[in-house]
Amino acid sequence: MNFASDNAAGVAPPILDAIRRANDGFALGYGDDALTRRVERSLCDLFERDLAAFMVATGTAANSLAIAQLAPPWGAVLCHREAHIMTSECGAPEFFGGGLKLVGLPGDDGRITTDILEVALDANEWGGPHHVSPAVLSLTQATEAGTTYRPDEIARLADIAHRRGMSVQMDGARFANAIARLGASPAEATWKAGVDVLAFGATKGGAMAAEAVIFFDPASARAMGERRKRAGHLMSKHRFVAAQFDAFLADGLWLRLARHANRMADQLGQGLSEIGFRPLWPVEANLVFVVLPQDVHKRLTAAGASYYDMHRDTAPAAEFARPDDVLVRLVTSFSTTVEEIDRFLAAARA
Amino acid sequence: MNFASDNAAGVAPPILDAIRRANDGFALGYGDDALTRRVERSLCDLFERDLAAFMVATGTAANSLAIAQLAPPWGAVLCHREAHIMTSECGAPEFFGGGLKLVGLPGDDGRITTDILEVALDANEWGGPHHVSPAVLSLTQATEAGTTYRPDEIARLADIAHRRGMSVQMDGARFANAIARLGASPAEATWKAGVDVLAFGATKGGAMAAEAVIFFDPASARAMGERRKRAGHLMSKHRFVAAQFDAFLADGLWLRLARHANRMADQLGQGLSEIGFRPLWPVEANLVFVVLPQDVHKRLTAAGASYYDMHRDTAPAAEFARPDDVLVRLVTSFSTTVEEIDRFLAAARA
Amino acid sequence: MNFASDNAAGVAPPILDAIRRANDGFALGYGDDALTRRVERSLCDLFERDLAAFMVATGTAANSLAIAQLAPPWGAVLCHREAHIMTSECGAPEFFGGGLKLVGLPGDDGRITTDILEVALDANEWGGPHHVSPAVLSLTQATEAGTTYRPDEIARLADIAHRRGMSVQMDGARFANAIARLGASPAEATWKAGVDVLAFGATKGGAMAAEAVIFFDPASARAMGERRKRAGHLMSKHRFVAAQFDAFLADGLWLRLARHANRMADQLGQGLSEIGFRPLWPVEANLVFVVLPQDVHKRLTAAGASYYDMHRDTAPAAEFARPDDVLVRLVTSFSTTVEEIDRFLAAARA
Amino acid sequence: MNFASDNAAGVAPPILDAIRRANDGFALGYGDDALTRRVERSLCDLFERDLAAFMVATGTAANSLAIAQLAPPWGAVLCHREAHIMTSECGAPEFFGGGLKLVGLPGDDGRITTDILEVALDANEWGGPHHVSPAVLSLTQATEAGTTYRPDEIARLADIAHRRGMSVQMDGARFANAIARLGASPAEATWKAGVDVLAFGATKGGAMAAEAVIFFDPASARAMGERRKRAGHLMSKHRFVAAQFDAFLADGLWLRLARHANRMADQLGQGLSEIGFRPLWPVEANLVFVVLPQDVHKRLTAAGASYYDMHRDTAPAAEFARPDDVLVRLVTSFSTTVEEIDRFLAAARA
Repeated sequence: MNFASDNAAGVAPPILDAIRRANDGFALGYGDDALTRRVERSLCDLFERDLAAFMVATGTAANSLAIAQLAPPWGAVLCHREAHIMTSECGAPEFFGGGLKLVGLPGDDGRITTDILEVALDANEWGGPHHVSPAVLSLTQATEAGTTYRPDEIARLADIAHRRGMSVQMDGARFANAIARLGASPAEATWKAGVDVLAFGATKGGAMAAEAVIFFDPASARAMGERRKRAGHLMSKHRFVAAQFDAFLADGLWLRLARHANRMADQLGQGLSEIGFRPLWPVEANLVFVVLPQDVHKRLTAAGASYYDMHRDTAPAAEFARPDDVLVRLVTSFSTTVEEIDRFLAAARA
Repeated sequence: MNFASDNAAGVAPPILDAIRRANDGFALGYGDDALTRRVERSLCDLFERDLAAFMVATGTAANSLAIAQLAPPWGAVLCHREAHIMTSECGAPEFFGGGLKLVGLPGDDGRITTDILEVALDANEWGGPHHVSPAVLSLTQATEAGTTYRPDEIARLADIAHRRGMSVQMDGARFANAIARLGASPAEATWKAGVDVLAFGATKGGAMAAEAVIFFDPASARAMGERRKRAGHLMSKHRFVAAQFDAFLADGLWLRLARHANRMADQLGQGLSEIGFRPLWPVEANLVFVVLPQDVHKRLTAAGASYYDMHRDTAPAAEFARPDDVLVRLVTSFSTTVEEIDRFLAAARA
Repeated sequence: MNFASDNAAGVAPPILDAIRRANDGFALGYGDDALTRRVERSLCDLFERDLAAFMVATGTAANSLAIAQLAPPWGAVLCHREAHIMTSECGAPEFFGGGLKLVGLPGDDGRITTDILEVALDANEWGGPHHVSPAVLSLTQATEAGTTYRPDEIARLADIAHRRGMSVQMDGARFANAIARLGASPAEATWKAGVDVLAFGATKGGAMAAEAVIFFDPASARAMGERRKRAGHLMSKHRFVAAQFDAFLADGLWLRLARHANRMADQLGQGLSEIGFRPLWPVEANLVFVVLPQDVHKRLTAAGASYYDMHRDTAPAAEFARPDDVLVRLVTSFSTTVEEIDRFLAAARA
Repeated sequence: MNFASDNAAGVAPPILDAIRRANDGFALGYGDDALTRRVERSLCDLFERDLAAFMVATGTAANSLAIAQLAPPWGAVLCHREAHIMTSECGAPEFFGGGLKLVGLPGDDGRITTDILEVALDANEWGGPHHVSPAVLSLTQATEAGTTYRPDEIARLADIAHRRGMSVQMDGARFANAIARLGASPAEATWKAGVDVLAFGATKGGAMAAEAVIFFDPASARAMGERRKRAGHLMSKHRFVAAQFDAFLADGLWLRLARHANRMADQLGQGLSEIGFRPLWPVEANLVFVVLPQDVHKRLTAAGASYYDMHRDTAPAAEFARPDDVLVRLVTSFSTTVEEIDRFLAAARA
């Protein structure tokens, strides 16, 4: 009953197989290899356009490299105040970006709305030389709250950003889960809706360590090779990160894995609702947030369930009926089983 | 009728005289001169203790060098959300600090309270490796709202910070105005209350370009010389920045100048109150904030009054009776005259 | 006949097996897993002391994180002028180190001598506030020229560095090859000889992407977790980098793989000598440098041999008999075969 | 007898007067004042073209801001190995430039030649993603050795740089001395010869603290305002730095002051030659380098002469007849007197 994180899951077998197959003979390092070329072509096919892709091993690197490419050191990056880049990367975007500034925006369900974005842009003094300049709108898809942005929402937000001269970056650590849910094509959910750069995550979705920074306008990726290298993120035996992506994308594996994770989250959310623990936010990806009474929490933990409790400020105070109620985050993955869900619900119910 | 800023004022005549007197013969550059030594001794006398002082030419440099010395790149600097370092230095602390993070706290009257500080420290996830670590509490004295922290308030805030392993830095661009008001000694209002480092401003108080970063524990200033030099803030003909501070401190000039500026602000505030425009926040330094009806604002401007209007979000919405009411900031200085105040009030009244 | 680089080789089968075995069930991310703990213990055993280890995916990251931890932004890092960190990491140490300065030293055979180090330390103006301060001596073991430092040489160099207040960092991308050759224990070749921090590479030795930054004094690793995280180098599914190291260290695999690579380099060097192409520098690891006449170079290339030619300035001019002679670098690896060597020599000879 | 540095001199009286005159009434801060506008126009007139100018208080800031604007963090800045930015600014260009790399070139007389530049550009591996890219050629005019580049030499160097896609920056801390000597117009010695950005120093020439970063192509100065502000180098009471430049440029004062300093250096150099101490390098600005026997050095010091001795590596070993010979640098300034020169020569002679 492991619902701690999708990064506590292992590697999907087809991806592990691909790594093994890639281990055949010699291949030049640093991305000068055939598998890397093939992944680049696959990404172009998948997104239905020319693009520039840079694979790295961590999501922190993918987001931070993307942001640093889009924002000058005196730029502001507007993101949800609970965004991973804001709260959980120990200041990585600031490091990569030479001291740029993240500005956290409010928003229910982990989502920024057009109203929120416009208020933020209007309420602050921006621009030189005294104030930082809004440079990037960063959207997390799926969000930290397990919700998703629909393409039309993205388009409206991107439109506001672009009109202010900002770029739009998408943290897609769980992009697969969002796409699996939305029924939109990857192109529709990104560049067709105004996303300029996507950090496309494979790790949480079933890879070992593989993320791709995707610039939909290749011209905007100028010198990204140097940026990646000097950050230590150009892999030496690069074929192995490429192999992961190759398998991830082949025959829609990435979507099959994500659909499973989403389905498991749905069952978990529905099961908890039936017991009386309604998820706080719509379950639109592979995350379920519920408030549990202390005794239920203890019973689940005793039964061996693994998950994180969140700071109570993450949810409206009204959600907590008792002072010792616990807000918990349950994450499913490609490897979550129906049996785990059932056992968890049984333990919660009992 | 210039109330735009205290940096729109010129240089107090005794300071200009001191610059002229310092221009006699040769003196080694980069601070190896007798005037610099004398200022260092004067600061020790003024603050009643051994200390390490580093003079620079701008307040942005003074604050940013101090903060970078106290916080690692993965440190968080907690400050008021309207603090100058947060809003008006174009990301300077982030640049000097290698990408550290500023966290803006709310607070009426421009002041952080112990409650606010404790809530912020408790509400966030802090610490490695995923989260930044609280490293510095930065207090602005006098605040951007023209209010001041009393020594006992500082002591309680500093105590919270120190118990969390944080340092306390004070942005004292208007330190003179605060001290002139508080009736506390410089020592009582700083290190005796727990302030670790003070950016002591002379520029707004009547100097040309002179600020001092003061480390009350000289050991904490290790390698500050290198830090200042590589930021381009070690003055070549250093005797001239020292001469300014020397005159500023001599015979209490700094307090006489500040008392005049404060008195002018008091008269302005009282005069406006009598007309019906009550200052939003207590006038405790040389700043007066009032909401003016549009016609009064226009009349004043037409009469030649110079001042800035502020974003309405700076004040509670309830302060604005009419949609076109304007929140204005009026700043007095050592060179403000009673005649200017009278003319301004007459124009406001008419 | 692939002698381009040891990173053009794949992954040693036992390491690939270990990755597969690690893919069993759930394990908390970010290093909170049992395999990571086991590797940490293995490293303590191997180096015969308590230490702090941080695994990352690239050598650039390992070196740069180590250096940034040891040197302040105003520090100088003294290294061989042909060192990888100097020439081939696109300024990574400078990026991680907040703008520190690398100072390249001369030295035949890729090695810095005590004389060279002392001359460099004496010939420059060092120290604050005007000059950078010598902070780190970085030694590459084995060197870029395929030579090695003996423990007593390291000890003498480290002694000079320590007496100047510097730390000693070792770039051990080919540490295994050096140890396999030296007949010294890992402890004798590192901390017992004065090395403070080792970037211990497994990738070139047969892993997929695994390097460890090893602090022999755990106290000197303070906040390295934050430093690694904000550089994007904390792996999410950390167990898989740990699995690689676990297998690399188990039963001396790392030394067996390195001994094979070294033996292949020996055979290559001896064979080339017999034909008349004497290696420029002693073959003490898995690198062979020879000057080839243009026709031999063309014949080898035509025969399918893969290797890099080097800039002629890398070797003394006297080594080049003809203007179109080519300096080439031949790198062997754990996967080089005797048959490849034989074919290469045959093609060179014919 | 002060020959320690031109920054040990004070402020030329007309510049001090201008500061006093500028202290009349109010003027908006941060450069929004009439004097700043006037200096900008004067600079356009002086350089016979449209340009963008940014005044700051130190030469370190002027050079570092210019370089950071021209080079990306993965850029290399080629400069003479004795250049001030290389040896004496504690890594400031690296700090401002986000960790860029300075590459020191050899060159007699403090000058880089076209041969040296081409060899350096050809001898190194440059470019992404593994190597830094040559981005800026930095020329010091007058050089650290007291020599000057003639416009045609600059043009040939700039041509090489431009053909490689590099920009040309000039460290003009002693630009006035060079122009006073060369008999070329400021335009001829800068943009007409291919200089893209000039750090035009007034401080050493007689100002208190005033330098200007001049972009001959205003478009290349995009966001320099933000860059200057976040480095703490936008002066608050900006009119006073403008006043210095205004007086410096008025009626050719800058050239008159420089001509005097140069003439004093000439007399010193000729006088020393007559005694038998020939200057090492042509005296083309306000610097004289001579090797003195120990007893002469002691006699001069005893007589009260102030100057610095240099590291012997700065000059060819053959210049030192005796092991205790001392290489000294003598700097004249606008305030050096004939009487000082005579006394110095008398003491040297006796």
